[in-house]
Amino acid sequence: MQTGKRNFRDTIFLNKRPDLLNPKKISNKLFTRTFGKNIFYFNSIDSTQDAAKKLEQNGAPEGAVVIAEEQTKARGRGDRSWFSPKGGLWFSLLLRPSLEPKEIPLLSLVFSLAIAEAIEKECKVICKVKWPNDVLLENPRLKNSFKKVCGILIEMSAESDKVHWVIVGCGVNVNNLLPKELIPKVVTLKEVLGKKVNRNVLLQALLKAMESFYIKFVQEGFSVFYNSYNQKSILQDKNILIEDYKNKTEGKFLKLDSDGSLILLTARKELKKFFSGDVSLHS
Amino acid sequence: MQTGKRNFRDTIFLNKRPDLLNPKKISNKLFTRTFGKNIFYFNSIDSTQDAAKKLEQNGAPEGAVVIAEEQTKARGRGDRSWFSPKGGLWFSLLLRPSLEPKEIPLLSLVFSLAIAEAIEKECKVICKVKWPNDVLLENPRLKNSFKKVCGILIEMSAESDKVHWVIVGCGVNVNNLLPKELIPKVVTLKEVLGKKVNRNVLLQALLKAMESFYIKFVQEGFSVFYNSYNQKSILQDKNILIEDYKNKTEGKFLKLDSDGSLILLTARKELKKFFSGDVSLHS
Repeated sequence: MQTGKRNFRDTIFLNKRPDLLNPKKISNKLFTRTFGKNIFYFNSIDSTQDAAKKLEQNGAPEGAVVIAEEQTKARGRGDRSWFSPKGGLWFSLLLRPSLEPKEIPLLSLVFSLAIAEAIEKECKVICKVKWPNDVLLENPRLKNSFKKVCGILIEMSAESDKVHWVIVGCGVNVNNLLPKELIPKVVTLKEVLGKKVNRNVLLQALLKAMESFYIKFVQEGFSVFYNSYNQKSILQDKNILIEDYKNKTEGKFLKLDSDGSLILLTARKELKKFFSGDVSLHS
Repeated sequence: MQTGKRNFRDTIFLNKRPDLLNPKKISNKLFTRTFGKNIFYFNSIDSTQDAAKKLEQNGAPEGAVVIAEEQTKARGRGDRSWFSPKGGLWFSLLLRPSLEPKEIPLLSLVFSLAIAEAIEKECKVICKVKWPNDVLLENPRLKNSFKKVCGILIEMSAESDKVHWVIVGCGVNVNNLLPKELIPKVVTLKEVLGKKVNRNVLLQALLKAMESFYIKFVQEGFSVFYNSYNQKSILQDKNILIEDYKNKTEGKFLKLDSDGSLILLTARKELKKFFSGDVSLHS
């Protein structure tokens, strides 16, 4: 039956409509198997990641999502704080995957690729991924200038050979403001697009892409994402500095290996392999 | 100052003294840096592993130990139940290691080796290790007949590249009874030695060995344990069946690789590598 109502999913851009999250509408019109079928919505919360852990303990199902308009004590990787004011998309996704613990770090590569492709498709922009867990956005008025638009935090609970649960924290800068100190490296979708984005529609698109990539990864492994990831990698052929928990190492980024590790060519022409670390680009 | 009191640490065997755990005495006479310096003692608890998780959330320090005379809902690997009546040694150890998540499964190899060596030294018996997380005990009246005396459960919470905490659950069959169905594969120390063992002294010995092996592993990696592990492995040159989360595979155990994985030679003369799985011996 045709009604005169606007379709909720019709557009990614907001004109004069207010920018409010509506978890019920998100779930209802979401064509996924489990991702986002249960949404726990908070106006303000300390951390969606911690809330997701509590929900996990109470038996929340695979695909459950915790979302908040703002977080007061959000965390990024390595306990760094994460600025999460109203207007952004801050959510945590609960998974109970049939994967081995050593495969879990690859999820940050898979999900960053899913998010990059979903933002590109919905917003008609160009995104890149930065190993291991960032999504960058190009400013179309400043070609080849990329800034971080999204970060991913993967946490897990596991036995030696069995994963109990994984919680995927995502922070996407959408219509929110940014503090001055972040502006050189971080960008919002609104800033690049010059208009507000409908966060409900964006979240639907993200969850749909994330689920589809996740199912593929669980079934076929990382090798099917390997080429796309390398193509979308901002690090390709760049000189970088990588800082892991032991050392700082400079070199040229050669490629992502099929196991998700980063291969660096040092000035001494040695190949080095990194499974973790923070990467910055060198000029 | 010399006193007439017996030294608490004097003997591993109990004569007429009662078999009671005494956490205060264990901690006081324990010459370790952190392991067992804080002991949380329960007469009866659902699971020392779950109690350790709660203590972790409340900020318990590295090396904290939860011990119970009996557990009512103890778990082994993969959510299997673990029989934990009075008389055994059931404890969980909290760690906050500077290790990467992928190194954590190796802790079950390192700790099983530590426990095997400590039991050998204290009780003058012969122990073997069974990949990935069991300690077996030889019946001296039945040479080359080994049964399981201890199992280890490693659980962790981690980000992709950072471990938050690890809880090491240990169950040692000491003076306890065993249910009929376990008797073909499991044994208690009391049964093999023909006398009761002082669990306080045994726990001190285990914690001391575990800490010393742990410090060495964190500093030097698994390679320093590689030879000892292979020498103590019950699987050496045996035909085995290995069951992981995908398949059952038969073959001859060739060796433990330096990364802690198991190398199998199949009937088709193919080499296969396993990072996890349940192993049973074939005749």
